[in-house]
Amino acid sequence: MPEIPLPEKTLTVAGLSESDLLARIFPRLELDSRHSAATLLGPGDDAAIIAAPDGRTVISIDTQVQDQDFRLQWPSGYRSTGFDVGWKAAAQNLSDINAMGATATSMVVSLTLPPDTPVSWVEDLADGLTAGIRGLGAKDCSVAGGDLGRGREISVSVAVLGTLSGGTPVLRSGARPGDVLALAGTVGRAAAGLALLESDSADDSLSPEQRKLVALQCRPWPPLAAGPLARAGGATAMLDISDGLLRDGTRLARSSSITLDLDPQTLKRLAEGLEPASDLLNTDPLGWVLAGGEDHGLLATFPPGIQLPPGFTAIGSVQATGDSESPGITIAGHAADTGGWDHFAD
Amino acid sequence: MPEIPLPEKTLTVAGLSESDLLARIFPRLELDSRHSAATLLGPGDDAAIIAAPDGRTVISIDTQVQDQDFRLQWPSGYRSTGFDVGWKAAAQNLSDINAMGATATSMVVSLTLPPDTPVSWVEDLADGLTAGIRGLGAKDCSVAGGDLGRGREISVSVAVLGTLSGGTPVLRSGARPGDVLALAGTVGRAAAGLALLESDSADDSLSPEQRKLVALQCRPWPPLAAGPLARAGGATAMLDISDGLLRDGTRLARSSSITLDLDPQTLKRLAEGLEPASDLLNTDPLGWVLAGGEDHGLLATFPPGIQLPPGFTAIGSVQATGDSESPGITIAGHAADTGGWDHFAD
Repeated sequence: MPEIPLPEKTLTVAGLSESDLLARIFPRLELDSRHSAATLLGPGDDAAIIAAPDGRTVISIDTQVQDQDFRLQWPSGYRSTGFDVGWKAAAQNLSDINAMGATATSMVVSLTLPPDTPVSWVEDLADGLTAGIRGLGAKDCSVAGGDLGRGREISVSVAVLGTLSGGTPVLRSGARPGDVLALAGTVGRAAAGLALLESDSADDSLSPEQRKLVALQCRPWPPLAAGPLARAGGATAMLDISDGLLRDGTRLARSSSITLDLDPQTLKRLAEGLEPASDLLNTDPLGWVLAGGEDHGLLATFPPGIQLPPGFTAIGSVQATGDSESPGITIAGHAADTGGWDHFAD
Repeated sequence: MPEIPLPEKTLTVAGLSESDLLARIFPRLELDSRHSAATLLGPGDDAAIIAAPDGRTVISIDTQVQDQDFRLQWPSGYRSTGFDVGWKAAAQNLSDINAMGATATSMVVSLTLPPDTPVSWVEDLADGLTAGIRGLGAKDCSVAGGDLGRGREISVSVAVLGTLSGGTPVLRSGARPGDVLALAGTVGRAAAGLALLESDSADDSLSPEQRKLVALQCRPWPPLAAGPLARAGGATAMLDISDGLLRDGTRLARSSSITLDLDPQTLKRLAEGLEPASDLLNTDPLGWVLAGGEDHGLLATFPPGIQLPPGFTAIGSVQATGDSESPGITIAGHAADTGGWDHFAD
């Protein structure tokens, strides 16, 4: 019997030392050739050093865990790539900086990997991080360091730093009655994509429009220019919509002790483009608009009469909260259920 | 039959919403009553804002994973408490800042928790973080924010920020032939404690001296004053010994392109105090001194003739690397095996 060549054995992280694995990751982070100007000291020492030109650093941290925040294998048949996970980790973190009206200067990344993780998956993740940072336009940001460890499930923690460039941060607490409520970016797209991934509609039967919604779940596209523009344009309050318009809007409302009133006609317009998913799944797309997270759009309030910065659309108004009411959200004056994503509640 | 009251059901994180769990954690981080002066904006918004008075931020990230970096249940019978894990997360991260010659200004914490994690364990973790920060003397540091998520195993990612207060960071790359090699803090203690935890010696049979070694594994005590003192005192190179004297020493040697020569008499002295563990386990304690990590002592080099800063002891010298040699470690001129901890190598 002729000898049949075996397929080349997949190289896993168990087959490499920590330094060998790092040596494969670092070049993909473009650290060799071009640090961002903000990175005064990059990887290779006990800590990195990042410029903070106005004497302040904006900082946030976020973790993505396998089978919680992404699945390697979805019911639809789609497999999340390392590239997807890297891009999404970049996008989520960059959005937190954006939501303060700041621009990102640096990321540090802590990876937890099961020993049987293919090295190629980790290389894809590094590529996705870099592509997310570059593709989303965070041109002053680069990965300045990190940490590798072993675990039973893949986990990606990213801490991101940013600068306000001397400006005043836009907090959640500054909305005032009479302000205009505005949105930059999209809502509901990533949730529609999630519903497609979790449906039994075979991934390879999806239309290009449906596939685009899946792509926005796996590789979200936060409007990074909008945050600093909102700050410069006089926004009174702002936050990242990561857990849904109603849920995050309620957070802003409570922080500011006001009521946000959404315009129902605008909500309907925001649902346009979701039909490729809602028709297939026989669902009301308005649910995704109101409760779907992960598009990482920005919800912001602006003083009345001010011209909204590029990228923002008015979607409602800020009202004083009635004496017998709690700060929250109404739709054309009627109370709205909160909904949205909670990590622990059943 | 009289009714026997059931023990009160243990409250787990699955029984609380994210905001309810945060409401239990925040007070334990002492965020309500006393922010550090460096925290310009604490938890509750999309990101925190930390002062960076000299226009630079030192940043590092580190993750502890259940059954990798700690075990809830050890072979000896000891159970790692949330307090232990919180303290160790604080200590490891503070040590990375210390090793640059900087002082910590802030931490952000990302917790991944299985749904059946007792809420009391998470509260203990918050207490341990706070106690570690305070107990180790990081008086300018506080927890400025974080993130909660769900997973199959407990994972604690901490990003820590620090300031160099206008000074020059001490890198790994600055050691020069003729420099004195010095150590602050201990080596081998945490490794001896680990060996006791992993032995079948019942935890409750340990002597107070043995128990102290276990405590240093679970709640390490990095010498936080020593880093900034070394910077001010002219250290030419420095790093945190987290993976062992030989392994981390080799990193410094390679970064600086020199050879570190250790004094064998000093190594023997460093092994003093390990007998309570080495006698019980019938081991040579020098192995722990050379290859044991997690005490988080500092290895630093100083120009010859300079007075070592308080806390540092000379343990060897910096030599030029011979033409036919690679930068690394020798003991009285003889090559030493590297050893120490690698996250992936078998």
